[in-house]
Amino acid sequence: MGHKEHFLDIFFNPSSVAVVGASANPSRLNYNLVKNLLKFNFPGKVYPVNPNAEEILALKTYPSVKDIEAKVDLAVVSVSSNTATEVIRDCVAKKVKGVTIVAGGFSEIGDQGRRRQDEIRDLLRKNNIRAIGPNSLSPINTANNFVISFNSVEKLKRGHLAFVFQSGLYDPRINWMFSEFNLRVSKLIDLGNKMDVNEVDALEYLAQDPETRVIAMHMESIAGDGRKFLQLLKQTTQRKPVIILKTGRTEAGIRAASSHTGALVRGSDIIFDAALKQSGAIRAQTLEEFFDLAKAFESLEPSSGNKIAVATLPGGEAVITADLCHQRGFILAEVAEETREKLRHVSPPWDIAANPFDTGVCGQFHSREEVYNVFLRAMTDDPNVDYLAVQLMPRDLSGSDEFLRSFLLAREKQKPLAIWMPGVPRGRHEIVNWFEEQKIPLYESADAVIRMLAVLRSYSMMQSGLKNL
Amino acid sequence: MGHKEHFLDIFFNPSSVAVVGASANPSRLNYNLVKNLLKFNFPGKVYPVNPNAEEILALKTYPSVKDIEAKVDLAVVSVSSNTATEVIRDCVAKKVKGVTIVAGGFSEIGDQGRRRQDEIRDLLRKNNIRAIGPNSLSPINTANNFVISFNSVEKLKRGHLAFVFQSGLYDPRINWMFSEFNLRVSKLIDLGNKMDVNEVDALEYLAQDPETRVIAMHMESIAGDGRKFLQLLKQTTQRKPVIILKTGRTEAGIRAASSHTGALVRGSDIIFDAALKQSGAIRAQTLEEFFDLAKAFESLEPSSGNKIAVATLPGGEAVITADLCHQRGFILAEVAEETREKLRHVSPPWDIAANPFDTGVCGQFHSREEVYNVFLRAMTDDPNVDYLAVQLMPRDLSGSDEFLRSFLLAREKQKPLAIWMPGVPRGRHEIVNWFEEQKIPLYESADAVIRMLAVLRSYSMMQSGLKNL
Repeated sequence: MGHKEHFLDIFFNPSSVAVVGASANPSRLNYNLVKNLLKFNFPGKVYPVNPNAEEILALKTYPSVKDIEAKVDLAVVSVSSNTATEVIRDCVAKKVKGVTIVAGGFSEIGDQGRRRQDEIRDLLRKNNIRAIGPNSLSPINTANNFVISFNSVEKLKRGHLAFVFQSGLYDPRINWMFSEFNLRVSKLIDLGNKMDVNEVDALEYLAQDPETRVIAMHMESIAGDGRKFLQLLKQTTQRKPVIILKTGRTEAGIRAASSHTGALVRGSDIIFDAALKQSGAIRAQTLEEFFDLAKAFESLEPSSGNKIAVATLPGGEAVITADLCHQRGFILAEVAEETREKLRHVSPPWDIAANPFDTGVCGQFHSREEVYNVFLRAMTDDPNVDYLAVQLMPRDLSGSDEFLRSFLLAREKQKPLAIWMPGVPRGRHEIVNWFEEQKIPLYESADAVIRMLAVLRSYSMMQSGLKNL
Repeated sequence: MGHKEHFLDIFFNPSSVAVVGASANPSRLNYNLVKNLLKFNFPGKVYPVNPNAEEILALKTYPSVKDIEAKVDLAVVSVSSNTATEVIRDCVAKKVKGVTIVAGGFSEIGDQGRRRQDEIRDLLRKNNIRAIGPNSLSPINTANNFVISFNSVEKLKRGHLAFVFQSGLYDPRINWMFSEFNLRVSKLIDLGNKMDVNEVDALEYLAQDPETRVIAMHMESIAGDGRKFLQLLKQTTQRKPVIILKTGRTEAGIRAASSHTGALVRGSDIIFDAALKQSGAIRAQTLEEFFDLAKAFESLEPSSGNKIAVATLPGGEAVITADLCHQRGFILAEVAEETREKLRHVSPPWDIAANPFDTGVCGQFHSREEVYNVFLRAMTDDPNVDYLAVQLMPRDLSGSDEFLRSFLLAREKQKPLAIWMPGVPRGRHEIVNWFEEQKIPLYESADAVIRMLAVLRSYSMMQSGLKNL
C-alpha cells in the first residue's frame, strides 16, 4: 500500500482544518492551536470554530463545524469533554475525514468519562471517521508546517525523524526539541487515550512514510494487538531504526499511567523487554536517552566497526572516556605510525598517548585550533579508526572557519563523529546549531557520547546480521 | 590534632605566595595564576617570579625565589620540567614551607621524567618541605580567595563542599562549577602525580576542616597506603558524606591513567567497589553524577523516610517519575484526606491522582502559580510526605515572589526538595541561581532528581544504622 493511501495521511496532510474551541485570547492554550498554523503559513484552509467569536486572528469564525461552507478534511476538537459529543455529531454531519480530539476528561477520569469516550467512539466508527485521542496533542508535519500545539512554537526543523507519543509528554518540551536540542523532525503524532488510532496504525504509517528514516516511539501501554505490533516492529526495524521508550514499567508507573490516559497496562516489563530485543528495536532507558538516541540516529550513519579515536581536554577525562569505551565494547584504535607522526606536530615536547589524545597538555604548547585540526585530519585519514568522539569546551565555539571545517572531514569518510561539551550553550549559540545542522551531534558528557555511538554500532551489527540471514 | 596544625593548612592559608613562571602575557595560561589572586583580592602577599620581567600586573617581579626579601610560605611552580629542579633548589634555599608543582613533564612522560620527579622529591624530603603535584592545578580556598587556576575564574561561591581531584580534571570546568552549576565550595585540591601529598593526606585534612561538611574525591589511583585510606574513609563517612569518583576502572582506563599521571593503578575495580561500600563512601558512576551528588549533599539534609510527593508538568512524565521512584526504593506517599481536599482547589473539574500530581492538566483550568503554591503547601504540611520532587519549565522562572516563597516551605519542614527542569538556563538566569542559593538544587531530568534523593536517603539510613551500633 502506498503512503498517500494510508488512512492516517489525512491527519498529516489535510487541505482544510476546523479548529473547534479556538480562542482569541492569547492567554488561553487554545489560542495557540490557530496561531501556530498562521505563524508557520500552513498552506491549507483554517476554520476556527467558536460560537462566541466572529473572528479569531483575522479569520472568519464559525459557530459550529456544520456552518463551514467548504469541505473539512480534519477537525481538531479542543472543547470540554461534556460538549465534545455534540461537536462530534456536528463533525459527522459535516462528513469530516478525520478527527483529532485534544480534549481531556474521558477514560482517564473514570467511569463517567469512559462512557463519554465509548459513545464518541461508536458514533465515529458507525460513520467511518477515524480519530486520534482523546487527550492528544498533535499531529505535526514539518513538510507542510501543520502544527497542533498548546505552546507558541518558535521554530520547526525539518528532517527524517518521526515521533510517536502517548499523552502530551513532548508538548511542554516542544521548543526545547526544535530550538535548543536541534531535532530534525518529519512527523509527530500523539496518541493520547488511543480510543481508535493506536500504536499499530502509527507505526504502519511511518514505516511507509518516505520522509521518515528513524522512528522514536513513547508508549505507556499497548492498546492494539500486541502480536501484530511486534511483527510490524520486526519488519520496520529491518529498514528503519525504531527507538522505544516504554514507561509504566513498575507497579507505581502502571498506576500513574492508568490515571492519566485511562489505559489498561498489561504484561510484565521483562517480557516486553525481551520481545523488543527480538524485534530489533532499540529501547531507551530514560526520557533523556530517548531524545539523545533520536538525535544520534537522525544525524549519523551507523558503522559496525569497533575502533574509536578519542580527544579529551583534560587528561583525567581521557581516563573516564577510556573506561566508557571499554565498558561499551569499543577498542581504542591502535593508530598507524603515520598518524602518530602527524600528532607529534601538536604534542608537548615529550611523547604522549595518541589515543585517547589529551588536547589539554597539547594546548599548553600549541594553539587549540591547531591541535584539533591535526587530530581530526590524522584520525579521519587513518583506516584503523571507525568512530570519533571529541570533547570541546564552550570557549572553542569561537573557532575559525578552518577549525570548523576540520570537523566535516569525518563525515566525508563515513566515520561517525560526536562531540561532548560540558555546559553546551544550547539554543543561543549559532555554532552549536551549525554543528548539529552538519549532523555532528553535541552532547553534555562523554558518557552520553560513548553510549550513543555504542548503540549505533550495535544497531549496525544487528543489521548486518539480519542481512546475512 | 587541630586543623590549623595539619601540614596541609599552609597550602590553603599561606600568608605569602611566590608564583614561579608567572607571565605578563594574557594569552599565556600562567598569566591567570597571578591574575586570579589579584582579581579576588587574595589577602596574602603575592610575589611573581620570572627572570625576564620586572613587573607583572603591577607587582614587583623577582628573578628567583631566593631574591624575595620577605618570607615565603608557599611556592607555586609553573615552569617547564627541565628547569623545575633548579627552581626547587631555590625554594629549599628560601626555606619555603610548601611547594605546589603545576608543571607537567614528570613521571607521566616515562623514565626521564620519573628521574626528575624522584630527584625533586628527594630534595624536598631531605629539607622537610611538603609538595603537591607535580602536574597539579590547585589549591583553591574560598575562605581567603586563594585560587590557583589556568583559567580566568569568573566567580567563587563559598560553601561546605570540598573537592579532591587527581589531575586537573576540573580545571576546564571551573567556571561551569561555580558560575553555572552553582556549587558552593570550601576547598579544592588537585593531587596530580602525587609525588608527596596523596589522597590520605587530603582526606585527613578535610575530615578535620570545620569549613568542610561534604567531601567529593576524584581518584585514578591510590598512591598512599590503601588500608590506611580505607580506615580513614570509614571514620570520615561517619561524620561527613564522602562521594568518590574512581576512574581507571577498566584495562583501557588504567592505561590512560598511567599515561597522564604516571601512576601505577593497582587492584581490581570490583574489590575497590566492595571496600568503598564497606567504608560508607558514596560511589559516583559517572563524572556528571559526581557533580550532581556533590550538589545534592551540599544543599540538602538527608532524611531516612521513603515517602515521596511528586509534581510533574505533563502526565506522561508522572508515569516516568513513578517508575523511577519505585526503582529507587521510594514509595509515592499516600497523602492525607486533608491534602486531597486542598489539591482539589487546583484540580480540573474531575478527580485526578494526588501523587504524582499532574500540574499540566491543572494548568488548563488554573494558573500554574496557584497550582504549585497549593501543591507545595499541601505536601509540606502532610506528615505522610518525607521527600519532594517537582518539575518546572524554564517559563515558570518568571514566577512571582509568592510562587518562589512557596518552595521555601519544604526546607522549613526539613523535607528535602529538588527540582528538575529540562533545558534549565544555567548561568544566565537569576532565579535559577536564587533557587540554588536557597539550597533547592535544580537538575535536568526526573532521572537525576530521583537518583540524587535516593542516594541521600540511603546515606541517611546507613548513618542511622551506624549510630545504632
